[in-house]
Amino acid sequence: MIRVGVYGASGYTGLELLRILHRHPHVQLVFATAQSHAGSALRDVFPVPWDIPLIAEAEADCSTVDVVFCCLPAGKAMETVALAHRHRVRVIDLSADFRLADAQVYTQWYGIPHSAPELLPLAVYGLPELYREQIKHASLIANPGCYPTSVLLALYPLLKEQLLPLDRPIIVDSKSGVSGAGRSPTLRTHFVEANENLSPYNIGRTHRHLPEMEQEIVRLGGPSGQLIFTPHLLPVNRGILSSIYVSVPKTTSIEALHALFCQAYAGEPFIWVLPSGQLATLAHAVHTNRCVLALAQPMPGQLIICSAIDNLIKGAAGQAVQNFNLMFGLDETTGLAV
Amino acid sequence: MIRVGVYGASGYTGLELLRILHRHPHVQLVFATAQSHAGSALRDVFPVPWDIPLIAEAEADCSTVDVVFCCLPAGKAMETVALAHRHRVRVIDLSADFRLADAQVYTQWYGIPHSAPELLPLAVYGLPELYREQIKHASLIANPGCYPTSVLLALYPLLKEQLLPLDRPIIVDSKSGVSGAGRSPTLRTHFVEANENLSPYNIGRTHRHLPEMEQEIVRLGGPSGQLIFTPHLLPVNRGILSSIYVSVPKTTSIEALHALFCQAYAGEPFIWVLPSGQLATLAHAVHTNRCVLALAQPMPGQLIICSAIDNLIKGAAGQAVQNFNLMFGLDETTGLAV
Amino acid sequence: MIRVGVYGASGYTGLELLRILHRHPHVQLVFATAQSHAGSALRDVFPVPWDIPLIAEAEADCSTVDVVFCCLPAGKAMETVALAHRHRVRVIDLSADFRLADAQVYTQWYGIPHSAPELLPLAVYGLPELYREQIKHASLIANPGCYPTSVLLALYPLLKEQLLPLDRPIIVDSKSGVSGAGRSPTLRTHFVEANENLSPYNIGRTHRHLPEMEQEIVRLGGPSGQLIFTPHLLPVNRGILSSIYVSVPKTTSIEALHALFCQAYAGEPFIWVLPSGQLATLAHAVHTNRCVLALAQPMPGQLIICSAIDNLIKGAAGQAVQNFNLMFGLDETTGLAV
Amino acid sequence: MIRVGVYGASGYTGLELLRILHRHPHVQLVFATAQSHAGSALRDVFPVPWDIPLIAEAEADCSTVDVVFCCLPAGKAMETVALAHRHRVRVIDLSADFRLADAQVYTQWYGIPHSAPELLPLAVYGLPELYREQIKHASLIANPGCYPTSVLLALYPLLKEQLLPLDRPIIVDSKSGVSGAGRSPTLRTHFVEANENLSPYNIGRTHRHLPEMEQEIVRLGGPSGQLIFTPHLLPVNRGILSSIYVSVPKTTSIEALHALFCQAYAGEPFIWVLPSGQLATLAHAVHTNRCVLALAQPMPGQLIICSAIDNLIKGAAGQAVQNFNLMFGLDETTGLAV
Repeated sequence: MIRVGVYGASGYTGLELLRILHRHPHVQLVFATAQSHAGSALRDVFPVPWDIPLIAEAEADCSTVDVVFCCLPAGKAMETVALAHRHRVRVIDLSADFRLADAQVYTQWYGIPHSAPELLPLAVYGLPELYREQIKHASLIANPGCYPTSVLLALYPLLKEQLLPLDRPIIVDSKSGVSGAGRSPTLRTHFVEANENLSPYNIGRTHRHLPEMEQEIVRLGGPSGQLIFTPHLLPVNRGILSSIYVSVPKTTSIEALHALFCQAYAGEPFIWVLPSGQLATLAHAVHTNRCVLALAQPMPGQLIICSAIDNLIKGAAGQAVQNFNLMFGLDETTGLAV
Repeated sequence: MIRVGVYGASGYTGLELLRILHRHPHVQLVFATAQSHAGSALRDVFPVPWDIPLIAEAEADCSTVDVVFCCLPAGKAMETVALAHRHRVRVIDLSADFRLADAQVYTQWYGIPHSAPELLPLAVYGLPELYREQIKHASLIANPGCYPTSVLLALYPLLKEQLLPLDRPIIVDSKSGVSGAGRSPTLRTHFVEANENLSPYNIGRTHRHLPEMEQEIVRLGGPSGQLIFTPHLLPVNRGILSSIYVSVPKTTSIEALHALFCQAYAGEPFIWVLPSGQLATLAHAVHTNRCVLALAQPMPGQLIICSAIDNLIKGAAGQAVQNFNLMFGLDETTGLAV
Repeated sequence: MIRVGVYGASGYTGLELLRILHRHPHVQLVFATAQSHAGSALRDVFPVPWDIPLIAEAEADCSTVDVVFCCLPAGKAMETVALAHRHRVRVIDLSADFRLADAQVYTQWYGIPHSAPELLPLAVYGLPELYREQIKHASLIANPGCYPTSVLLALYPLLKEQLLPLDRPIIVDSKSGVSGAGRSPTLRTHFVEANENLSPYNIGRTHRHLPEMEQEIVRLGGPSGQLIFTPHLLPVNRGILSSIYVSVPKTTSIEALHALFCQAYAGEPFIWVLPSGQLATLAHAVHTNRCVLALAQPMPGQLIICSAIDNLIKGAAGQAVQNFNLMFGLDETTGLAV
Repeated sequence: MIRVGVYGASGYTGLELLRILHRHPHVQLVFATAQSHAGSALRDVFPVPWDIPLIAEAEADCSTVDVVFCCLPAGKAMETVALAHRHRVRVIDLSADFRLADAQVYTQWYGIPHSAPELLPLAVYGLPELYREQIKHASLIANPGCYPTSVLLALYPLLKEQLLPLDRPIIVDSKSGVSGAGRSPTLRTHFVEANENLSPYNIGRTHRHLPEMEQEIVRLGGPSGQLIFTPHLLPVNRGILSSIYVSVPKTTSIEALHALFCQAYAGEPFIWVLPSGQLATLAHAVHTNRCVLALAQPMPGQLIICSAIDNLIKGAAGQAVQNFNLMFGLDETTGLAV
């Protein structure tokens, strides 16, 4: 049994993580923290029956665990990650704090100085389909953002083959369920405001997931400064669908592109490339750890990729457990719905 | 043109009221207040194009209007109503502050002492189908609550004929859209919490609308202390459906009861008694000022009444304008969707 | 490994059943039938990746399995059940065909003569919390209806103690997600008709689940002919919430009633009696095999019980697997979310 | 009073049209047809109280009216339009039958030969903001499709100024409420399939609205063959949000583009160009005849336009009445919500 601690259990990601860990055959949950609910149990905070005690962060002793999952907000996470690292405990950080390799870029986008920049070089970007080997031996995983997961898995086969021109926009039109906005009540996530509505927000090049996506695109040899990203708040609880528009070489057929995707993801347990003619929908992905991909070619030289995930699972807690499984030598799918 | 002032324009009821008044052919809107949005316009607060300035309450001069609509919260409304009354301005109060005739009962349920009990005897309960004549000459209308509107209109034909036994429960199982909970963000009205969910709350004899309903039931000669009321939060934006279970004399047929309802509401522009065999749904009522009623008899001696309204229209702003039309000698349906 | 066959895999219940069986550690799925999709795979019919072949019923050889689950419609199921029985294969029938002990009552409600009345005495009503011992040795399980599951588990502790008066109505106001209406498109389940709506249907004493509930109530010594049942179509995908109103002895306190429920269900893995003051919501139950119960007392002599289940899991496929686990000597919770 | 006939009253567009006409002060409704509901009343088909008789098409005498609205399906409409034209009755056709100027293109996309190609030159494309003067004198209006309305109004200011390069894609990512798919029940519009889901369909260059949009883009001097159109089925009842990505000259600032839009639509009663920094959402448009536009510039040379309409109003019935008002010399906004 692997001894696990969870920081930040009172959000939707924390709940989803505990739901998975609770059923995971190799996990012994040692502690779960929830600053504003310390002293109560998980079942006082969510409509679930599990009597998991929630403690204050200061009470959590990370020297008693093999790994911690950190579901704290950006800015808060870095301190806890540094603490765990000092205790030589492996960390899977679900926040944004270690996703950007450059501390200055981090500060520019998140408005917070980075208090543990010395750990940034240790952080492995936790997208198993791209970085599986590094993840196995990592001491610190920066678990990807939900939008970046849906987008990078859609672009990876093209980037791998250098098929994206460096001077053309990559247009990403994404739609996310409301759980992606967290559990703190706000006017825009108020039921009456979000229901029967669809709202674009932080569009163009203003959303915090933009530098994360561009960093990875560039790392894979793709274009810099070409990403146009339009997230929308969608009136569903969970799921992200990204419709992605890219230029590809005019001579590359849709059949060749489809074959390329199938090949790039052959054997991947959580990537489902749909047969030609089918399109990915949220229903293909929600409540699973899958990323579902579909292709369509509107005209030679152009490609549409539809990418669907569950934002709380493949986009957060499920991917974190996938990383955990890899880090501890377990079957990658343990505890996760294929 | 009748000069109108609106207090409390930044909630859903205020918006719905301004939407109706904005199209009303006999209304000149003189002012609209919104304490926390003073200085901005309605279109800064809601996704509507109308450039209606929102002012602070202190800036509103009620001596310049013929009538005020008061959409302030319970406890706040009574002061503004008293102020308007001192200026001899007629008032339609959409809060609960003047619905309960007894100030002590008010304090018991709302936890607030009543600062204007001398006005309580002047207040007419603004349910036009029951109190049309009094409304016409009223200086102060206590506009009914949303649940009470749906329930009292369903019970009235039976109460009128003294058909409800005094010793049997009246069971009201109500379901309300989330706009009934107001526009302030809370965890229970957060999209992810309310969507794909259904939650009973304040059930039994604990909801604040209970004494209001019982007061009117008793006033009409019905049973005291027999009301069981179970509201549920329903994942829709608007509408209330109340399913009501009462005992009736065993010898009264469903046909006779249906005829009774049709007769009680003959000529009422906003009451729609469905033909036998049809059942009222939210879709029959939302976006209109209608109350839609349907009857079914499970067995001799028992009756089910289904009652549907739009909580923001017939349950609030629409009924307020219906009262306004009556008070100012206009056609009762002016500006309202029949 | 237990060899399993599934009849009727192309509805929502069939899908949910295959989802559970697919992960069940002791199940070997031998065949799945779907008459109108014979020749295709499950992933051609639903947005799931599993390549489970769907065959015609005539091709299914039930002599090759240890047990069949039958998800066929009423009227169709009885023939298949009889066939399986002739092959001495144990059957879990999710249809209504063997729930009513009296073939005449069946015909009266379902409009179909019963073609296998000789099997009715063998059928055990598959509500494990009431009939666990009989289920273990049954050759034929009549898996309960979704509404009856939510209602009978709510009434059982009272019926067991003979606390329900024989001459007072039992009022059940139920709300069901749309998956309860099946997967065949109809006007009332069309998105635009059901969304933002709430519709009562078949109310009073007209729904087919009424005789099933009354049979079990009477079997437990409760009142006959007193059930009033009002189902509503709720704009959510899954879940049933039943708000139930009964008379109880005036001297029985809510504390005593709560203790009674806790005691009646002590040790039950899938029954969750909420602490006093909390109310059951759909969110407590959906995506699990739980029945969640809460009590409130509006006044002495009256009790409200709120009961929540997932109609496709505890109300159908999950309960079927719970029965399966019991029949084959497995841990009752195997493969099911507690 | 203008005498009006309506063909095809039993769909969502027909209902919305009758809702508007019913309140229109200058309309006398002479007949409404609904082939499969002939002999019943509107209130038997929809949850509305209006006792409007529905007759068979053959019974409708179009010589008794001044204008007909035709809400029949593609292929059916052309015959009725031709009939009305022979009676010298003006026609507002809400189908696709007269939108494409070239009968061959029509046949290619709709798979039906055109039976009245001689009328095509008479048809005016009923987008008042582009063709107001022609509409006033038209005998036949081809009322635009819902998606084209949202897209063309978003592109028009750019096309007018020839700002769109002829060799770059115009990418339109549209999301439509389910009422856009009509009222006939299908699996994809079944509540359980569409709810909590988002589905792209007919993407790229395969949707029937593509040639309609391209025809108008080319007519305005824009690029040919560059439109990429990705519609999605959105889990809401009504509304279309189109997020549109175009290349613009690198030197044109967002301020200049915003000014251009404001100028192009100055005085337009139903176009609302949002202030810089605000984004269009469905909530800005639904239940009104508005088209709401917002701009954002992700980088020099690129522009995002968000365009929101109500698909049943500005995208169908409301625009039809706007055209009607123009044709009969009425104030353009009569009967329509600004």
